[in-house]
Amino acid sequence: MEIAIKSFKTKHNKPDLHTLFYPKSIAIVGASKNLIGGSKYYMALKSSGFFPIEGNVYLINPKIEKLFGESVYPSIKDDRIPKPIDLVIIAVSATTVPKILDECNKRAKFAVIYTSGFGEAGNEELDRQLKAIITQIDTRIIGPNGLGVLNPYSKLQIYPNWKEYKGNLSYIAQSGGTMARLYLCLGPLGIGFHNVVSIGNAYDLSITELISYFHDDPITKTIALYLESIPNGREFMKTAQKITPEKPIILWKGGQTNRGIRATASHTGGLAGSYDIWKAMCKQSGIMLADHFELFQDLVQTIVVRPRLPEGLNVAILVAGGGIGVEFTDTFEKFGLIIPDFEPKTIQTLSSLFPSVNTNFKNPVDLGEWGYNPQLFEKALKAVLEDSNIDVVVFVREPERFGIISELLNIPDAQKATIESLEKIAKDTQKPLFCNPSMNKDDEKSYKQRHEFQIAMIKAGIPVINYMLNIPKIILQLWNYRNYLVKQKSIQV
Amino acid sequence: MEIAIKSFKTKHNKPDLHTLFYPKSIAIVGASKNLIGGSKYYMALKSSGFFPIEGNVYLINPKIEKLFGESVYPSIKDDRIPKPIDLVIIAVSATTVPKILDECNKRAKFAVIYTSGFGEAGNEELDRQLKAIITQIDTRIIGPNGLGVLNPYSKLQIYPNWKEYKGNLSYIAQSGGTMARLYLCLGPLGIGFHNVVSIGNAYDLSITELISYFHDDPITKTIALYLESIPNGREFMKTAQKITPEKPIILWKGGQTNRGIRATASHTGGLAGSYDIWKAMCKQSGIMLADHFELFQDLVQTIVVRPRLPEGLNVAILVAGGGIGVEFTDTFEKFGLIIPDFEPKTIQTLSSLFPSVNTNFKNPVDLGEWGYNPQLFEKALKAVLEDSNIDVVVFVREPERFGIISELLNIPDAQKATIESLEKIAKDTQKPLFCNPSMNKDDEKSYKQRHEFQIAMIKAGIPVINYMLNIPKIILQLWNYRNYLVKQKSIQV
Repeated sequence: MEIAIKSFKTKHNKPDLHTLFYPKSIAIVGASKNLIGGSKYYMALKSSGFFPIEGNVYLINPKIEKLFGESVYPSIKDDRIPKPIDLVIIAVSATTVPKILDECNKRAKFAVIYTSGFGEAGNEELDRQLKAIITQIDTRIIGPNGLGVLNPYSKLQIYPNWKEYKGNLSYIAQSGGTMARLYLCLGPLGIGFHNVVSIGNAYDLSITELISYFHDDPITKTIALYLESIPNGREFMKTAQKITPEKPIILWKGGQTNRGIRATASHTGGLAGSYDIWKAMCKQSGIMLADHFELFQDLVQTIVVRPRLPEGLNVAILVAGGGIGVEFTDTFEKFGLIIPDFEPKTIQTLSSLFPSVNTNFKNPVDLGEWGYNPQLFEKALKAVLEDSNIDVVVFVREPERFGIISELLNIPDAQKATIESLEKIAKDTQKPLFCNPSMNKDDEKSYKQRHEFQIAMIKAGIPVINYMLNIPKIILQLWNYRNYLVKQKSIQV
Repeated sequence: MEIAIKSFKTKHNKPDLHTLFYPKSIAIVGASKNLIGGSKYYMALKSSGFFPIEGNVYLINPKIEKLFGESVYPSIKDDRIPKPIDLVIIAVSATTVPKILDECNKRAKFAVIYTSGFGEAGNEELDRQLKAIITQIDTRIIGPNGLGVLNPYSKLQIYPNWKEYKGNLSYIAQSGGTMARLYLCLGPLGIGFHNVVSIGNAYDLSITELISYFHDDPITKTIALYLESIPNGREFMKTAQKITPEKPIILWKGGQTNRGIRATASHTGGLAGSYDIWKAMCKQSGIMLADHFELFQDLVQTIVVRPRLPEGLNVAILVAGGGIGVEFTDTFEKFGLIIPDFEPKTIQTLSSLFPSVNTNFKNPVDLGEWGYNPQLFEKALKAVLEDSNIDVVVFVREPERFGIISELLNIPDAQKATIESLEKIAKDTQKPLFCNPSMNKDDEKSYKQRHEFQIAMIKAGIPVINYMLNIPKIILQLWNYRNYLVKQKSIQV
């Protein structure tokens, strides 16, 4: 399906989406006593403080007069509702949606169709009907089959009691669950969002229009995408090519295998196309790719927390313990990363800092328990980062060991001292730097320690990648992105 | 190096290792005021209640008379120490080790050499000296460069304040850190251990002798191994071949790549050999392989919790949400698993149970929020398990959603009801069954919920695999093991 850009064009020939993300009036069509449907949005906007502080909300249902102590209007055509409405949320049965859309015309700037049951469910006739009405009206549509729009800055919220995780990441997901997952997983770690869209089948307002708007948006610094299908790949690619030299785009593409593509068809109803084409498209437009959620999440974390690209694939590994050094070396080498020898100077520095008992100063470095001394670790990390053979440093800190280490090494607060010293190091170097917390105990207390540590590290500018296997995959994506930018002459070497 | 079996032979020509795992007297050579060295063992045995309840501990140090209020003996030759000593822990400098070993001869049944600094550190002359004395004495040696032996049943402990995680898993690791990691990660989840050995360089008592003993040991049901090198592969393989028809063996082999093999050399000093040879060896002896720690941990969990082997690679996926269904399908298919169509009967059952709004009854099944109703989910899972096209079922339950679901669906305790219904299902089916908790929120409360849920599920006989990517890898290992057993006529088809 070709997207026709219909309204709200700016001088750059782009739709002005500011109103979508910062609406001042919202109508909820299909609000009822059932808390799962339209009233979920009412609860969400109430809990976020959108109304009465930020904007007005109008509940629409011809069968009800009062709900949650508020007046309910029979239709958005009701004269008591000031026109135009910035955003209409439609949560009625699928067959009723075309009629509501007709009412939106000339009355509403944007409408989210929460309702599902169109092409993705095999209801072809209703699907054709919906698509026809969309082309006839001036209201721009988000969805169908999507949760709509979230913006912690404007208190535009889609679930009750979700926290406001404000930041510079804008995010589009074709799956509502996946939208929620990234927001709720990264938010508590200190990674915040600006504009978030659960776009579902994306029958009108397109991914391309959205990322183009994010390109101009001064708050957005990074763009994350979960996509299953896209109607106009060429246009998307051209737009992405303009964006990636300035703002990184990270994409997880659902529907990579035959069966996966079939599954996307019954999910968001689009034709997904071969994954090889998507891979080629990303390569040609500098988009970083993640194969699945956990990797997507970690790649986004890395780009937000430490947007530094490696100058090569030479990795230094700094750990406490021989087994884990072997593990990282095995895994990284299998992905084509190099674990090179250090310059002699680096080994000399390490040897001068640490005793030679239960330690190893070759790459992978094993600092043993001595390495938990924050001052010594800072010096070791610095020496390794300054080694000209090294492009990336991956180190392990096990937060659950800080307690016993503080005791054994007689250091007041080993964790605090470690974070403080790493903060400075992270600022002083341009190299990518990763921490793996190497889970040592699977219990509540240890999780709490790791979680708090990760939040502090993220604040210090160091991504914490819990699942080791994701680290080489992330490094390779950063490396691809860098090579793309060099080729495009967006960065100089 | 060829291992010579020297003493404590049983009628089966195997060393009797019972005393090693159930010692009644322990001498710690090198106990001092430094809590990192030998005294760590004293603290460990004190905190576990080994002495005075279970056995006697003798501290040895010629320079000290009293330590922690206890008498310290100048040497294990001291007449006040009753002979023979069951286990000596040696934590002195590397150069002193040969002398201490000489003193162990005829006086001690077993000795753990905690000290490192031999072949693995490049000290070749000392290494030769150590190996020579080992062949001359009757004391059997564990190590050097290892943490020794742990057994929660006999209160034999190696770190202070470690909990007693009693169970049926016996475990040998060539890395002390890796030994600790598996014990402390699986233990809190309810997966317990019998005999655990951190064997380091393994210069005397061999991996083969140990697994052979575990074969006969009635408490051991599963054997886990982290190995870097082995001196006599053929003997190891022959022994493993005898064991795997009765007790599963799971191996993580450190040193898989060129650089990884180099790293093992400076860790435990052995020649690791090519990973391809190891893979072939495992294939020929029915050993399941894990490439890295996280997978190792999850594979061990699976085998302990649900030792069921699949009859094929046809997987059913049961989730709530379209995006996650696509994700699992993509990932599983890439590993060669099949996501087949269901029998018509199964789809009929699912359609009769659930509304067709926001649901999809084809494989991957999306039950939407309705699927959180425990009774409905139980019926859905049962229908899918009974489908003759299906060999394995993977389902998602997000524990952090149980609260809101209980509220929305008006169910008193959705989590409790879910676990209770799954417990029965897990018992009634012979098929492998996996739960993925699909992290939806990364915060403390959510972790607590997932952690408690995992413990309850493990108790119910269902492994919980947090990192989705490990699931297909585990299924393939179970499949390989099954095919091996079929080929060996150990199981009939």
